[in-house]
Amino acid sequence: MSTGLQLIGNQFSGEGAQTFRAFNPKAQQWLEPTFKEATTKEIDQAMHLAATAFSQYKKTTAQQRAGFLYAIIEEIVALGDELINTAANESGLPLARLQGERDRTTGQLKLFADLITEGSWVNARINSGTPDIRQMQIPIGVIGIFGASNFPLAFSVAGGDTAAALAAGCPVVFKAHPAHPHTSHLVGTAIIAAAKRSQMPEGVFSLIHGATNETGQHLAAHPSLSAIAFTGSFRGGKALYETATRRHTPIPVYAEMGSVNPVFFLPGILAEKGQELATQFLQSVTLGVGQFCTNPGLFLTYGNAQEFLTKLQENITSIQPGVMLTNGILQAYQTGTQKLKTEGAKLFAAAPEAAHQANAQLFVIDVPQAIAQPELCSEIFGPSSVHITASSQEELYQFAASLEGQLTVTIHGTAADLEQHAGLIDILREKAGRLVINGFPTGVAVNHAMVHGGPWPACTPAAGTSVGTMAIYRFCRPVCFQDFPAFLLPAELKTENPLGIWRLLNGEFSKSNG
Amino acid sequence: MSTGLQLIGNQFSGEGAQTFRAFNPKAQQWLEPTFKEATTKEIDQAMHLAATAFSQYKKTTAQQRAGFLYAIIEEIVALGDELINTAANESGLPLARLQGERDRTTGQLKLFADLITEGSWVNARINSGTPDIRQMQIPIGVIGIFGASNFPLAFSVAGGDTAAALAAGCPVVFKAHPAHPHTSHLVGTAIIAAAKRSQMPEGVFSLIHGATNETGQHLAAHPSLSAIAFTGSFRGGKALYETATRRHTPIPVYAEMGSVNPVFFLPGILAEKGQELATQFLQSVTLGVGQFCTNPGLFLTYGNAQEFLTKLQENITSIQPGVMLTNGILQAYQTGTQKLKTEGAKLFAAAPEAAHQANAQLFVIDVPQAIAQPELCSEIFGPSSVHITASSQEELYQFAASLEGQLTVTIHGTAADLEQHAGLIDILREKAGRLVINGFPTGVAVNHAMVHGGPWPACTPAAGTSVGTMAIYRFCRPVCFQDFPAFLLPAELKTENPLGIWRLLNGEFSKSNG
Repeated sequence: MSTGLQLIGNQFSGEGAQTFRAFNPKAQQWLEPTFKEATTKEIDQAMHLAATAFSQYKKTTAQQRAGFLYAIIEEIVALGDELINTAANESGLPLARLQGERDRTTGQLKLFADLITEGSWVNARINSGTPDIRQMQIPIGVIGIFGASNFPLAFSVAGGDTAAALAAGCPVVFKAHPAHPHTSHLVGTAIIAAAKRSQMPEGVFSLIHGATNETGQHLAAHPSLSAIAFTGSFRGGKALYETATRRHTPIPVYAEMGSVNPVFFLPGILAEKGQELATQFLQSVTLGVGQFCTNPGLFLTYGNAQEFLTKLQENITSIQPGVMLTNGILQAYQTGTQKLKTEGAKLFAAAPEAAHQANAQLFVIDVPQAIAQPELCSEIFGPSSVHITASSQEELYQFAASLEGQLTVTIHGTAADLEQHAGLIDILREKAGRLVINGFPTGVAVNHAMVHGGPWPACTPAAGTSVGTMAIYRFCRPVCFQDFPAFLLPAELKTENPLGIWRLLNGEFSKSNG
Repeated sequence: MSTGLQLIGNQFSGEGAQTFRAFNPKAQQWLEPTFKEATTKEIDQAMHLAATAFSQYKKTTAQQRAGFLYAIIEEIVALGDELINTAANESGLPLARLQGERDRTTGQLKLFADLITEGSWVNARINSGTPDIRQMQIPIGVIGIFGASNFPLAFSVAGGDTAAALAAGCPVVFKAHPAHPHTSHLVGTAIIAAAKRSQMPEGVFSLIHGATNETGQHLAAHPSLSAIAFTGSFRGGKALYETATRRHTPIPVYAEMGSVNPVFFLPGILAEKGQELATQFLQSVTLGVGQFCTNPGLFLTYGNAQEFLTKLQENITSIQPGVMLTNGILQAYQTGTQKLKTEGAKLFAAAPEAAHQANAQLFVIDVPQAIAQPELCSEIFGPSSVHITASSQEELYQFAASLEGQLTVTIHGTAADLEQHAGLIDILREKAGRLVINGFPTGVAVNHAMVHGGPWPACTPAAGTSVGTMAIYRFCRPVCFQDFPAFLLPAELKTENPLGIWRLLNGEFSKSNG
């Protein structure tokens, strides 16, 4: 293609005059083709098609939508090496990682396809009697989704948010991340091809490009939009939240805005296997050049951590520097780590450096400093982590209580440590969407029980998850049907339970008929 | 009592200099005692106690919390006639209605007590394997609740929001509605007595009074608050929403802000039983002097409505005027209905008038007028309703599509009508939380399937309900526990399922062990 275009419904569109290009962070080269920035008219057109499509798409059966999701999987797989190579060029991520991420992406689509095929997710509730009330979850309308830079496949165009929204019955207008427009374009064409093959209404999916905030803000402010899903920085998520909550008709924003993911090491386990933990922890900090929302950017030790720290210092010297996703992210990492030093954190271990790459860096402060200067504990996206030394149990608990909302909090301890510090776990339960014992926060399982969410400023709202099957509820609302004649009831709520789903019948879970 | 005081935890407190009094709208007399407006210091103290109480209250067992809710029921019942008479004085509502409302209140408390005793509501999800992930709903913290004027018991101090929050494990700081402070005080003392009897931590419940917006706003802005529940006007709800979303740490606002609850009458049923429908409809419009959130303030007829309209005009003459909850509400009703006339709606039927009372009034406009002047279709709290005449199916659908979010939408039709207008129902499904066929919106059943919610401007967020067991989820968030040793898992998530609750085990509903 000569110029990157928008996918407005089933049409290519390139009305804009503004353009931008992606950059290969590994080769340090601008990439072709140039992409056009979407115009407000193009966004309006995508929204118009999506709103029109909703009236049909919401009436598709779960089987039809599952077929659509499976068709997307096939079309993505059919892109073959071109997709992986393109994503590698635009992100600097290794091929093996991107192949794994493609599997994660198709796995997510399959998970949601299977969820809706089984059908019980609609949370059908029937209270028979006078009146007869029957409730289920219905899709809310058109969803605007903003892709993340750090997962060009799994949290991008056909990522978890898109899978959940399409599964629920909501059309999607996707704002591609400007760091990987060509990858986004390839996946967008795969979704459009799948939609056509599956006879989905035009407008069920559109893809718009843009490198300016205005483009995203125009989408967020569009009156036909029903919700926003976002994965990215706190600043970006907050800007969308402000727009969405100040509209004439406010809409929910499901923003995953990152986290420092503190890891607590308790005395018994430090004594028992400090060296082993150091090796594992450093792997978690530097995995994927630290470019994960769940990267552990803070770690606290309480008790004698000498072996642990010595091993960290020893191991870090063999950690190779890595290419980051964009030069902007690299620069923010360098500025952030530099700022830590000037603001009083002490660098106690660092990996070798290289031009245009990020090296692992470990800093140290104590609890009083962490509490007095909370800016030392804020997220720096990349392979650094700040060590907090607690000199007493009081400091340990005090620091835990001072934490802001997180995606994850991790505690390492022997059984005795954990029994002794039950109060710590009790405090930390209020701070995150996921609590990990004796593991590491990186690696987010995609299943029915996962929560990838947490209190502000990690996410908004706290009661959401962007990973796992619960993510579908962000794009639904409950509606109840009072005294509806059988022929007007959705299949999910018909007395004879034609779909064979689990329902709450007068307060009792059952698969029987109503 | 000589002066009405705050209930700050287990203490009476009256630090404020500002005071206000309730008014008997029936006798048109000021009531004693005078109540003190809460000071910011008192609110801060209530919040401090509540936040401290949360760390203990969240750890109570469901049985302990259910016992607390049952104790509240007993204490409310023990208030006997004093409660009913006080509420009647402050609200002008009839004794029989208030006795019924007390039953509704205790019924709601029982429903939530039984819900948590059964236990499956926590939505436990277990994905065993590596890693082992276990999810459940946990309480979010201290809830600020703002009572409604129109249900001095069931949507007030011990109303549905309080029952849901306390059941979930959240302390409550309740801002009493200034129209019924003494009723609020009595119920507040009942809750405190129940809390003491049940050994609940001090601060699990506080009651503050105030007649100014500042008092409520101070509560809404308090950094220790985790969510707000509100039932009342659009203006009041929106003000709280704005405060809550612009805080340093935004919190969710669950606001039920009212609705016009349109009722659609289709041609076949108008021909079949227009007179009977007129009688029933007028009862719904005038029930409780029209002071329900679900009062039908709009009704549309399509087809020959002559018999229906004649019967309305005939019946309305025998509808007695009624005392409204407050003089302010009466005045707003008079201003609102007067404004309808000056803005072009035609009064076509009215009940007899009386001093200091509201009389039923019916207006008429056509669809083009309704669409051109949406202000004619906005809520007027009281026993009025605006008739919209649709001259074609196109107008009928056009009007339906133009509607804003509602708590309820009702359709009357024969089977043939409904089959012919499936497209209408399809449009209306997007407009409300509850759809009613051949019934009336007034009367909200309290059960597992009810949705008392709906899209903006009826409510925020659309995905919530303030009536029925689903209301508990407003005060919870999911959290997942990764690789927790058995002894640290909550009972709900222990492999052996000691509570015998329904759980989603690797995607399958089951009561078995994990």
